[in-house]
Amino acid sequence: MTQVSIPQGTRDFSPDVMAKRQFILKTIETVYQSFGFMPLETPAMENLSTLTGKYGNEGDQLLFKILNNGDFLKKVDLAQINSSKELMPQIADRGLRYDLTVPLARYVVMNRNDVVFPFKRYQIQPVWRADRPQKGRYREFWQCDADVLGTDSLLCEADFIRIYHSVFQKLGMHEYEIKINHRKLLEAVCEMANASEHFKSITVSIDKLDKIGKEGVLKELVSIGLSEQNALQILNFLDILEFNPSTIQNLKERTQGNALAEIALKELEQILNYCEGMNHKVFLDLSLARGLDYYTGAIFEVKALNVSIGSISGGGRYDNLTGVFGMKDVSGIGISFGIDRIYDVMTELSLFPETTKNFTDVLFCPMDEAYISYCIPLSNTLRAHGLKTEIYPNAVKLKKQLDYANNKSIQWAILVGENEVKDNKISLKNLVTGEQQTLDSYNIVNALK
Amino acid sequence: MTQVSIPQGTRDFSPDVMAKRQFILKTIETVYQSFGFMPLETPAMENLSTLTGKYGNEGDQLLFKILNNGDFLKKVDLAQINSSKELMPQIADRGLRYDLTVPLARYVVMNRNDVVFPFKRYQIQPVWRADRPQKGRYREFWQCDADVLGTDSLLCEADFIRIYHSVFQKLGMHEYEIKINHRKLLEAVCEMANASEHFKSITVSIDKLDKIGKEGVLKELVSIGLSEQNALQILNFLDILEFNPSTIQNLKERTQGNALAEIALKELEQILNYCEGMNHKVFLDLSLARGLDYYTGAIFEVKALNVSIGSISGGGRYDNLTGVFGMKDVSGIGISFGIDRIYDVMTELSLFPETTKNFTDVLFCPMDEAYISYCIPLSNTLRAHGLKTEIYPNAVKLKKQLDYANNKSIQWAILVGENEVKDNKISLKNLVTGEQQTLDSYNIVNALK
Repeated sequence: MTQVSIPQGTRDFSPDVMAKRQFILKTIETVYQSFGFMPLETPAMENLSTLTGKYGNEGDQLLFKILNNGDFLKKVDLAQINSSKELMPQIADRGLRYDLTVPLARYVVMNRNDVVFPFKRYQIQPVWRADRPQKGRYREFWQCDADVLGTDSLLCEADFIRIYHSVFQKLGMHEYEIKINHRKLLEAVCEMANASEHFKSITVSIDKLDKIGKEGVLKELVSIGLSEQNALQILNFLDILEFNPSTIQNLKERTQGNALAEIALKELEQILNYCEGMNHKVFLDLSLARGLDYYTGAIFEVKALNVSIGSISGGGRYDNLTGVFGMKDVSGIGISFGIDRIYDVMTELSLFPETTKNFTDVLFCPMDEAYISYCIPLSNTLRAHGLKTEIYPNAVKLKKQLDYANNKSIQWAILVGENEVKDNKISLKNLVTGEQQTLDSYNIVNALK
Repeated sequence: MTQVSIPQGTRDFSPDVMAKRQFILKTIETVYQSFGFMPLETPAMENLSTLTGKYGNEGDQLLFKILNNGDFLKKVDLAQINSSKELMPQIADRGLRYDLTVPLARYVVMNRNDVVFPFKRYQIQPVWRADRPQKGRYREFWQCDADVLGTDSLLCEADFIRIYHSVFQKLGMHEYEIKINHRKLLEAVCEMANASEHFKSITVSIDKLDKIGKEGVLKELVSIGLSEQNALQILNFLDILEFNPSTIQNLKERTQGNALAEIALKELEQILNYCEGMNHKVFLDLSLARGLDYYTGAIFEVKALNVSIGSISGGGRYDNLTGVFGMKDVSGIGISFGIDRIYDVMTELSLFPETTKNFTDVLFCPMDEAYISYCIPLSNTLRAHGLKTEIYPNAVKLKKQLDYANNKSIQWAILVGENEVKDNKISLKNLVTGEQQTLDSYNIVNALK
């Protein structure tokens, strides 16, 4: 047999896995929709001119590039070519989507005359990155984004927090925490420590708090050039606090007189007001600095608890999404769920409901091929009543048919042999309990409903 | 503003289009599932060794190839390279999925120890072909396949006919016809006309019957080398007949003594028996010869009537799906829906239900930002009752808020001003009829349900 394989870092999703993935995706999609988000899909390929320069140097390296069609060397003078770098732009004009954010920006710019703001869109599609594959990191993986463009209302922040709660509740994932931060608050803290010039290095460093601890961060801050006193001043803000009125009040007092802090805390206070009535804890974490380059206001991260896997969602508010394409003043806020990680967490904690693997409800088992015709109208009746139903297509031994049912986690088998056909009956077997009863065929729906 | 675009032959699916596409895809998926088909997804990229040689020379040309990562010229001696053809295999190992059939075969071979037969899978994913783009033909398009592997039962053929009826009924597409043919019947007819050696050319020719008419086909058959008498003998079989017992009987008489015809007609008769009770007409059309190279038994095609667009689905029975990968004896049957064409037909005939564009049911319109907090718990209540609900996030003029509602085809607006907040009321406006009433806020659910 030929040795077949799939490219490194890619995956087949077998029916069992698909069913679980669909459960997650459908749940998130339904919640997005319940808040008025609309679906968008963009092509797998984008022009490389759209993609390059948007993800930094490292990102450019990770783009999958598509060889031009036809005689792609036609216009290339190979004698002039010394490296891949020189040849690439001449033989590849397109690349695979790297995320869903740049395509969204490109879409809005292309359709700026039709898009009505505030524009609430969700998008669930694969993206591709030529990263080194490793456990939990793939070259093809799904993103599951929602963004609101064209409004600065802090209701959006509160809506996303509510969306988080709703999604995880519906998934049955109750052990998680939502962290919130605000870029301007972090800027204020650096300002107060006379370290504004080091802002970027400081965020990189405190983002590692989890891994290297406070002492590690302190060392790094000092090595960046902060005095120990200033470094400690920053560290003192990095405790994780409950997101509640007294935290806000306390921070107001500690940052009094700083204009940036005042803006940030006023915004956080408004978000908190809009969150009134939510009963799950949200935490304010000034060490949360993911993608600060990109975000300009609130920043979110969700962590699953009691599992090795950490962050399962993130997002935040940004200015000027479409600026890279020359269209100004389109700001917004967005979040993204990490489907693969949520899948892993739910697997680790056995949270998938039994029904996800319920591909078929009822299997007819004909004892002879002549009885298949007897099963057909009955199977149609069950389907019309919403029961997923199939007829085993050959009259192989009953054991083989029941193995098939077992493999597909089918709950009901309907055995059809000579006696059943003669008397217009069915023998209904519950494959979970093993119970079996014979009944008139016209009672089939009642018996199963 | 930068000029942005997407690659030729690709499309963005805006929310309006997405909603209609989701309606089609969801309908097909639900029907597939009701017959016990299970979902499968495979990666966008496959190794080129998996793809090449499977779609003929033309197909190989149409594969999108992915440039190897990193320094792809590292091992290439450019001095030795004279053409794209020589360079390609050295710089590209992977290509984009061209259809869903070869990936299915590859999947089954890779997972042969786990796959339980009969294996009923459906797969809905995009495929990519570097075809010249033209009206209705795209370089990225969706296929929507279902296959049953590992059984020769003719129940599968009948199930697929039933699936067709069920899908088109649920889509509200009532004007269509299903055509069926059988490869062996066509072979028999050629045999009887002493033209077996020309079988392939004959099928290519009669497949054009629609376009060039009987006279055109006659001319071609003669130019292939058939005597006019033999050509006419074949042509006499090409009338479209109702798929019913008398047609089968008639064909039995006309092909008496031919062993192939006997097999084919016996199978068709059994399929017909399994279809008993279906009230939609199926036609036997011996000129139906799509992909005969591939199919070995029954062949299907569905055409939409009263529209310029023709075929909207096809399929058939095949032997030896996995033979190209060295795994023998996996035969099966499958069909594929052409989503883009179904979309076009439904658009042309205005068949999409109004509800497809119903992104949001209820929009809260706060007259002042101070009233947003008043709307939040009410919006949560509506969502909990399954109503898609949003709050306009800024207190812009009512007209602008209602324009937004109109643009999203929202049926209900809830106006919240000073009086409503003071008296704990809401003003509910039906945006379709224009009617407006003020009611106690605790009655909100009753009023909308």
